Amino acid sequence: MERMLDYCSVSKMKLVKHLTIFLVVATYSFGSMAQDHPKLILTQEGVKEIRAKMGRLPILDKTLATIKEEVDTAIEQGIDVPVPKDYSGGYTHETHKRNYRLMQKAGILYQLLDDYTYAVYVHEMLKAYADLYPNLPIHPKERSYARGKLFWQCLNDSNWLVYASQAYDCIYDYLSKKERKHLEKNLFRPFADFISIKNPQFFNRIHNHSTWGNVAVGMIALVMEDDALLERALYGIKDVELNTGTKDNDGGFIIEEGKEAGFYANLDEPFSPDGYYTEGPYYQRYAMYPFLIFAQALQNVKPELKIFEYNNNVLIKSVYALLDLSDMDGDFFPINDGQKGMSYYNTSLVNAVDVAYYYGNKDPKLLDIAQKQGTVVLNDAGLSVAKGLKNNQQLPYVKKSIDLRDGPNGEEGGISVLRKDKLELVFKYTAQGLSHGHYDKLSYSFYENGDEVVQDYGLARFVNIEQKGGGNYLKENKTWAKQTVAHNTLVQDQTSHFGAKYEVGSKNHSEHYLFNIEDPKIQVVSGIEKNAYPGTKMHRTMAIIQNKGWQKPIVLDVLQVESDRAHQYDLPFYYLGQLMTLNVPYKAEDTLRPLGGDFGYQHIYKEGSAQLTDDNLKFSWMANNKFYTLTSLATAKDSLIMGRVGASDPEFNLRRDPVLIHRKNDRSNTMYASVLESHGTYSPVTELAVNATSNIKKLYKLYEQDGYWAVGIETVDGRTTVFVFSTLNNTSDKYHSINIEGRELKWKGPFTLINLN
Amino acid sequence: MERMLDYCSVSKMKLVKHLTIFLVVATYSFGSMAQDHPKLILTQEGVKEIRAKMGRLPILDKTLATIKEEVDTAIEQGIDVPVPKDYSGGYTHETHKRNYRLMQKAGILYQLLDDYTYAVYVHEMLKAYADLYPNLPIHPKERSYARGKLFWQCLNDSNWLVYASQAYDCIYDYLSKKERKHLEKNLFRPFADFISIKNPQFFNRIHNHSTWGNVAVGMIALVMEDDALLERALYGIKDVELNTGTKDNDGGFIIEEGKEAGFYANLDEPFSPDGYYTEGPYYQRYAMYPFLIFAQALQNVKPELKIFEYNNNVLIKSVYALLDLSDMDGDFFPINDGQKGMSYYNTSLVNAVDVAYYYGNKDPKLLDIAQKQGTVVLNDAGLSVAKGLKNNQQLPYVKKSIDLRDGPNGEEGGISVLRKDKLELVFKYTAQGLSHGHYDKLSYSFYENGDEVVQDYGLARFVNIEQKGGGNYLKENKTWAKQTVAHNTLVQDQTSHFGAKYEVGSKNHSEHYLFNIEDPKIQVVSGIEKNAYPGTKMHRTMAIIQNKGWQKPIVLDVLQVESDRAHQYDLPFYYLGQLMTLNVPYKAEDTLRPLGGDFGYQHIYKEGSAQLTDDNLKFSWMANNKFYTLTSLATAKDSLIMGRVGASDPEFNLRRDPVLIHRKNDRSNTMYASVLESHGTYSPVTELAVNATSNIKKLYKLYEQDGYWAVGIETVDGRTTVFVFSTLNNTSDKYHSINIEGRELKWKGPFTLINLN
Repeated sequence: MERMLDYCSVSKMKLVKHLTIFLVVATYSFGSMAQDHPKLILTQEGVKEIRAKMGRLPILDKTLATIKEEVDTAIEQGIDVPVPKDYSGGYTHETHKRNYRLMQKAGILYQLLDDYTYAVYVHEMLKAYADLYPNLPIHPKERSYARGKLFWQCLNDSNWLVYASQAYDCIYDYLSKKERKHLEKNLFRPFADFISIKNPQFFNRIHNHSTWGNVAVGMIALVMEDDALLERALYGIKDVELNTGTKDNDGGFIIEEGKEAGFYANLDEPFSPDGYYTEGPYYQRYAMYPFLIFAQALQNVKPELKIFEYNNNVLIKSVYALLDLSDMDGDFFPINDGQKGMSYYNTSLVNAVDVAYYYGNKDPKLLDIAQKQGTVVLNDAGLSVAKGLKNNQQLPYVKKSIDLRDGPNGEEGGISVLRKDKLELVFKYTAQGLSHGHYDKLSYSFYENGDEVVQDYGLARFVNIEQKGGGNYLKENKTWAKQTVAHNTLVQDQTSHFGAKYEVGSKNHSEHYLFNIEDPKIQVVSGIEKNAYPGTKMHRTMAIIQNKGWQKPIVLDVLQVESDRAHQYDLPFYYLGQLMTLNVPYKAEDTLRPLGGDFGYQHIYKEGSAQLTDDNLKFSWMANNKFYTLTSLATAKDSLIMGRVGASDPEFNLRRDPVLIHRKNDRSNTMYASVLESHGTYSPVTELAVNATSNIKKLYKLYEQDGYWAVGIETVDGRTTVFVFSTLNNTSDKYHSINIEGRELKWKGPFTLINLN
Repeated sequence: MERMLDYCSVSKMKLVKHLTIFLVVATYSFGSMAQDHPKLILTQEGVKEIRAKMGRLPILDKTLATIKEEVDTAIEQGIDVPVPKDYSGGYTHETHKRNYRLMQKAGILYQLLDDYTYAVYVHEMLKAYADLYPNLPIHPKERSYARGKLFWQCLNDSNWLVYASQAYDCIYDYLSKKERKHLEKNLFRPFADFISIKNPQFFNRIHNHSTWGNVAVGMIALVMEDDALLERALYGIKDVELNTGTKDNDGGFIIEEGKEAGFYANLDEPFSPDGYYTEGPYYQRYAMYPFLIFAQALQNVKPELKIFEYNNNVLIKSVYALLDLSDMDGDFFPINDGQKGMSYYNTSLVNAVDVAYYYGNKDPKLLDIAQKQGTVVLNDAGLSVAKGLKNNQQLPYVKKSIDLRDGPNGEEGGISVLRKDKLELVFKYTAQGLSHGHYDKLSYSFYENGDEVVQDYGLARFVNIEQKGGGNYLKENKTWAKQTVAHNTLVQDQTSHFGAKYEVGSKNHSEHYLFNIEDPKIQVVSGIEKNAYPGTKMHRTMAIIQNKGWQKPIVLDVLQVESDRAHQYDLPFYYLGQLMTLNVPYKAEDTLRPLGGDFGYQHIYKEGSAQLTDDNLKFSWMANNKFYTLTSLATAKDSLIMGRVGASDPEFNLRRDPVLIHRKNDRSNTMYASVLESHGTYSPVTELAVNATSNIKKLYKLYEQDGYWAVGIETVDGRTTVFVFSTLNNTSDKYHSINIEGRELKWKGPFTLINLN
């Protein structure tokens, strides 16, 4: 069944035929036929203006030239519509994926360059699909809870339709009525039905999968002007009965009781009022494309719906939220199931930035990101960005410290990024984040200059690399990446938060206690988690503090734990780089064995260990030619484990990254406190080590009672700074007074910084 | 004894005094006194022209501004000449190091800016040293075989004098005779004597240490016009008796019988006729500075010596050799004891490039490197480069495939770099390389686009990072980094080449067999080693081949082993990155144990193993978002060990890098053959994997007898290419004829490539 059309040789005749037909049609239509396509993403006004401005808008010209070269090369190679058989990364999967992207681009080229070659190409390819589709069985790969036809999952089939709809819109007026009817009857309608009414377990969810499904159906509905199909896209399939409680391949619930469905429901549920998407930035990036492409189409075809104003402009807000959840290089913070390296250079972000600019307030800061992206989308939104850049209207997009609430009403915790100079601290106190969430309440990660210093491991998957588990999630994603011990947060009794049970985790969320960046030199975030371990309350407060006289800002981390009974507590610390010094004697193991049997402990080798003392634990390391030191409170009852990821990994799926685990045994209440410093640099070219050692002489606890704690930081120059925090009152107008070592301290608001000398 | 002069407050008066004195002297000298300094590195003509061109040579102006800012800041901070006590990386060490660099720069600033502030600064600092030096004992740190006074080793004391001599030359005419006498009597002469006649075991060697010593003495001799001292610098200390056979801290011989000493001897011995420095590029970079700074001084003060023409212009050749031993990013290949990341951006290379340009043939390609360096030296050589750049005379420095002979007469093996497109293959068949050499005969490393793909581990040391072993060589340098198993070459019976005995290794070298790059599509290098394991001959041939129709060039590696008795053979393969696929079943270990007890095996954990089959071993991995595959001949008697560096490493000094070891047991003669492909790319932004799998279907041995071998490479498109090699005749005019599987092959020269279909 596999077919390879040698486009160049076979279709030259066709091209001539089509041109002839066109000339007849054109003569006729100029008089009386309404040309009302394209209308979804490209509009006729947009096409007219882009054609007029061609050669005078550098970024747009460059993008057009790139796309033209790509599509021209593809046209030369001919059309290939193989019978589906592979998983992601395999030949048929990648070819169909390439096809829908090519069709969409060729459709645009037809419109912008007014060259029928591209219309013919799209039409030939769509016809090939119309030939193939009606006889296609369900995809032979059986892994998905919703198998597609062209791809192993309906999700990818939906991707295909979202793009193909745009291509169809672009060549709609070029086709004869009969040609359109053929495509709609044999391809588009059965395709839309298959991913919706034939797969309600896929279409009627609150999930990024369903968003793609809803949008695919909605897009083709708008092209075909089919209101019933549009209704289905916007509000889901009505009167469908599905078993609640069943799960998808990632462990997420397919249908939960009492939930709405369709595009609006998917817009209501996962986005918080701040535009944070509950699955995290990696999936938000993926989800943004269908949300925004459909919003554009709706705005253009059904402006009366005012989709961009929906829920207080949540769609535009979400673009900013996403940009702000990237590091200094533009890479998204890889919380939850996130692949490292995904960034705002992804094409879906090019679309997002252009849309937010054009349909938002023409924010000149967005032009800064567009300029970095170096490309625009070829439609009205991209045109608008290209004009802004041409006129040098951009302003720097300076990322600030942010706190984004999670949950549809913003009441399910949140995520904060504290930023100071080139430091970025990500503190996560969100809800579960649907099926891609990790069991990592109150976890954090830390970056300098866009480089990871204290990492979040991210997902365990080689996305689209077929030879590693078909390019899909690896089993280690569940056994390792999602588990609590894989994160920089507290593990109790070597189990994960919520027992790593999605049913429990998805019903809970952490609580916001404080986010205060009024003084950029003392930025504080604080969150509480009461449900991860029943009977135990964790209250973690993190601050970036730049005190006067200090060389660089430091990160203060205080984690209070209160429990109704004694436990073992582990606090992992996933530094990247190589050990420089440890201030306690330690013993390296001769033979490496896994740390435990489950909850991720089976994946950590014990490389060494140390007994701590009643003094500070000081650990210095080097990463990216920079020196860092962690100074922590310790007691003689504590111990340290030096670990390495990679145990119980029969297929070598995990990175061999290091970890330090600070262990406290048989404690009910306890407090972890530490200071993280970036303090020096090394150059392998000059071979100079500058400030290679810590500036902190001692960290100590001064106070912990009656709803307050205070820690003192003594620097090597002999000065002491005290940070005092109120754990019971987070209001800014409350006056506090406590007595520490005979000294009366008074202040207003939930915290204060005091220089003792 | 530690003294801190607050320069700004204390010396303002002095500055006034000096200026007054100067005015008197100047009035007097204009009439009759000859001003003949500076003359070593900066000349009076150079000073005149730089002053005249100031503001019109961008790169020179930029360099001057940078240096001025640095020195001005230092002057504000005041002079600090502490009593020596630390190792490298420690405070006193780094301060004295900073001081000599500052003095040299301040001397230049005095000349170029005609501003006495800088002369005063140099003078005050030299006086502080003249106060300190006479009473200084030997440095308290005891590790060195030649302890210095300012530093823990004479080597660093020599560094100090090389720089201080230049500073002294610059302010020589500014000082009164009495001031000069004070400095020479209390500082320079005793300093020069200490590092030479008081430390002949340091001064009279053939070693980079001695070069620094010779040059230090020579430089100050030229400033002071002391011919006896110059003689000592050029020819060593005469009539000194030293025990031969004793070793330095790195295990190198201090004195070998019958060796000459002094600068000329150090120029004769370690440089080959091709300009390769036997210790390798990392140490060549270090050694080049004294060689070239002294050569400049000799050329300026004693032009009759024609130092740059010495030994067929070996000094200029050596600059090219060094540049050609860097990867696409300019990083030197880290063979022997080399720290990764050291590059031609190092200041000693700025000097080298400027010198090679000015004292060589004004090669416009060197301007390309100078432009990348973005800085020049502030003297006649740098002026010349700045003018060349200003006039846009640069041409691209395109690095070609090279073969550099080792040994004073070029008869002790060599090192080759094969380059094709963005691939670089480094093949090492050198002599031992003095005390910094590794036991790695016929080893190789492989780079793509400047990134390591198959690595050479480099040294085990954190240079100048005091908290890691004082910034000096770690014990793992000897137990791991130097050992054969740490390299991509053959290990016999789990011992190192020459039994890792320097005495044996330093008496032997590999042999050149072939280097042929006539056809850039079939570049071949071949070397032979007969002494590493007595009774065993290794003949390794490596080629970069770009056959027509192949997507990319491949690396062919054939290692023939012949022995008089049976052995175990291990061939390690230090890929960097993460395993994608292995075509044989393998078993990962639950518990990790070291592979062996000595010769570096104690530092490798066994992570997994596989029994091979009579088919190819195929191993694919991903590194730097590129896909690679190694396809190797295998037999069912072979096995594979998946290892990881880091065992027996009590201080966490080693990187946790992976290795594959192809093991053959109980074999006398055998042949390892493999093809290394770079075949695909991955982008975490587009999440597209392109050409993620190998293009090679099968590798097979077609022939191995009568002084020939032939291997066939079948690609997935069904075409077979045969590479035939003559192992006994390497001449280019010899005709060969052999019969392979009934097919008569005829060709001329030592190898040929035949396409079978």
